[in-house]
Amino acid sequence: MVKKHKVVVIGGGFGGLTLVQKLAHEPVEILLIDRSNHHLFQPLLYQVATGGLSPANIAMPLRTLVSRQSNCRSILGEVSDVNIGRNEVVLTDGDHFEFDTLVVAAGAVTSYFNHPEWSENVVGLKSLDDAMKIRWRILSSFEKAERSPDPQEQMRLLTFVVVGGGPTGVEMAGAIAELSHHSMKNEFRNIKSESARIILVEGNSRPLSMFREDLSAKACKDLEILGVELRLGVQVKDVNSNEVELSNGEKISTNTVIWAAGVAGNPLGASIARATGVPLARGQRIPVEADCSVPGHPNIFVIGDLAAFIPQGETQTLPGVAPVAIQQAQYVSGLIHNRLIGNPPPPPFTYFDKGSMATIGRGRAIAQVGRFGMTGFLAWMAWLFIHVLLLVGFQNQLLVLTQWAVNFVTHNRGARVMGRQDAWKS
Amino acid sequence: MVKKHKVVVIGGGFGGLTLVQKLAHEPVEILLIDRSNHHLFQPLLYQVATGGLSPANIAMPLRTLVSRQSNCRSILGEVSDVNIGRNEVVLTDGDHFEFDTLVVAAGAVTSYFNHPEWSENVVGLKSLDDAMKIRWRILSSFEKAERSPDPQEQMRLLTFVVVGGGPTGVEMAGAIAELSHHSMKNEFRNIKSESARIILVEGNSRPLSMFREDLSAKACKDLEILGVELRLGVQVKDVNSNEVELSNGEKISTNTVIWAAGVAGNPLGASIARATGVPLARGQRIPVEADCSVPGHPNIFVIGDLAAFIPQGETQTLPGVAPVAIQQAQYVSGLIHNRLIGNPPPPPFTYFDKGSMATIGRGRAIAQVGRFGMTGFLAWMAWLFIHVLLLVGFQNQLLVLTQWAVNFVTHNRGARVMGRQDAWKS
Repeated sequence: MVKKHKVVVIGGGFGGLTLVQKLAHEPVEILLIDRSNHHLFQPLLYQVATGGLSPANIAMPLRTLVSRQSNCRSILGEVSDVNIGRNEVVLTDGDHFEFDTLVVAAGAVTSYFNHPEWSENVVGLKSLDDAMKIRWRILSSFEKAERSPDPQEQMRLLTFVVVGGGPTGVEMAGAIAELSHHSMKNEFRNIKSESARIILVEGNSRPLSMFREDLSAKACKDLEILGVELRLGVQVKDVNSNEVELSNGEKISTNTVIWAAGVAGNPLGASIARATGVPLARGQRIPVEADCSVPGHPNIFVIGDLAAFIPQGETQTLPGVAPVAIQQAQYVSGLIHNRLIGNPPPPPFTYFDKGSMATIGRGRAIAQVGRFGMTGFLAWMAWLFIHVLLLVGFQNQLLVLTQWAVNFVTHNRGARVMGRQDAWKS
Repeated sequence: MVKKHKVVVIGGGFGGLTLVQKLAHEPVEILLIDRSNHHLFQPLLYQVATGGLSPANIAMPLRTLVSRQSNCRSILGEVSDVNIGRNEVVLTDGDHFEFDTLVVAAGAVTSYFNHPEWSENVVGLKSLDDAMKIRWRILSSFEKAERSPDPQEQMRLLTFVVVGGGPTGVEMAGAIAELSHHSMKNEFRNIKSESARIILVEGNSRPLSMFREDLSAKACKDLEILGVELRLGVQVKDVNSNEVELSNGEKISTNTVIWAAGVAGNPLGASIARATGVPLARGQRIPVEADCSVPGHPNIFVIGDLAAFIPQGETQTLPGVAPVAIQQAQYVSGLIHNRLIGNPPPPPFTYFDKGSMATIGRGRAIAQVGRFGMTGFLAWMAWLFIHVLLLVGFQNQLLVLTQWAVNFVTHNRGARVMGRQDAWKS
């Protein structure tokens, strides 16, 4: 019996999952390793954080997703290292697995640039745990404000600062504004939830700078209608448990700072860099060749947010967005297929940009495809349609649509459960 | 201006919430205190624990439930004591609130009888946190078994012991059996999830002993069809992290022991007993008068699971079930109404037993109303119908129905998210 080619895939996000599914009919043995038991639909994470959706609505068990694929085994575990000499990945618990081909799709983590100490007072938004932390922080701030006798402290508790004016930051700020100005209206006696301040801080002179200027201006207008205050062209200088200081000297008293300003490659990237001798690129990402492989290691590929891929003839790396990861996964699966049957490798990977969209609260969005732009309700409907289509798994599509329909009609956000244990501490 | 009569309600469960809602049109000032931000529909908690539903499906923000009731304020906090002399409740954070009438509806907590040390290796099922702990324990046992090379350890990980053969225990055992024997079939490569053992331990000679003998016999048959092993007439003698020892000498190697065998009154009951000088009854419950008041304290009422209410002419206390709490709440709200308008008090509280039901997996249930009994699919449809009707809040009804319809058709349990942080530890 011929020994099957072993493909180890690290990470079950958009890149890893696509790759596994594309290899479904290849004569390979796939091992999918993830430290979560689920594939996460990250673009809707902000809705879990603001009580619009439940975690399970945007998370599908990886096991279920690959259960019918007999050439794939999936395990729960965290990879700590890659042993290049032995062609093995090593898990934190010491277990190790051999590979013939390794695909690293471990994604990115929140980065506070050179201020790791900020992580104590700031929450990122990369995992379901993060989203639940933010949900807890927002809701408990309202609960504490309701019980506080001090108007100044109430104001501090009701001030929410979102750092980073990319799609995540804008969506987050819009959702908090809706939650406080609409969904929770009339639910408090001692405070007015409508009086909450939501402040969006962006270092660029405009938010959503990857969009055309007129679209980004429309987004600003929409944000202002929702009651979001903008601080443009300023950075965060310092954060402590009571306030944020901006680079323009402004100090904002707040209990909640949400970080959507930056990510860096998963720390696993550093281990791989050490093991392969390839120095990390900017943002702790691993520079890859035109075929997504690690220089000097043609059987190790890095795709998605962890890869620093510079298209031929350009100088900028591709952005850390889902479509890049998905297209790279498709490319690498094709390359593996060619190798298995002895065909020549495909031409270098090229990224096809299908466009971007961002939603700004209920009924408002902007979208841009090439030079074509769209705003308002139509853009929002397009956003909704595409996101439901992309959501993996029939039942999640149905449940999210039901929940959204209810939310839209009732203006409510029903998924506002907080864990009990720490609810009255800290 | 006349000072309004102040009613403080501790606990937003079935009893507390009903009481608050019944007082909606009374000229009173209500303060509802709960340590969670939600009302929990406990009868479906086992479905959250087994990945059939999401937490938010069975939890509704208390604030939303009382938002239109202008005479009610709701706060998040934990009551630690009652100051009888000053007519005040005291919170753990030192805050205190005055009352003219106090209604304590603080419910029950899991009790390991005289073995508090068992709580380390056993999980109860009273709160959403408990349910998520059980979900995590069950799912991670499967994940660990998939990765274990040792058949004996695999068997231990795949053995689930449920202690207590009341409705909660039976429903829990049935749901774990469905999860492992159906929902997760074909999802593992190294183990067969169908080989999981589910063992239900009950001290009585039959499970569901509050039902007629023939109904409880039918339930036993249904449980066996589902693959649940029964251990009847035996108690748990000891529990450690690796095994359970039964009173008949049997030792069962297991990683998961779920406790549905006993509850006791909320520890707040002990503080109230000390403050009022009324000794606690069996199960740490507070003995109450025929009008649900604490002896010698006509303005302090205890209702629901925390009350030990003995109907006139009987010797047994009423069971700790939702209908008792709801009917007591209705009674006490009527009594408060009479007092406010100077009417004589109503006759002593009497409980009207509308019957009981328990479900045993997909499509099977038993129900008993008076002497009338029902089993099989019809009983299950009745169970489903009644539970959806009783679920508070329109959107939860819709979402649960959608999720159940999907679950029924696909045999799936989609809400199988595990938190990531501890997934590969312990």
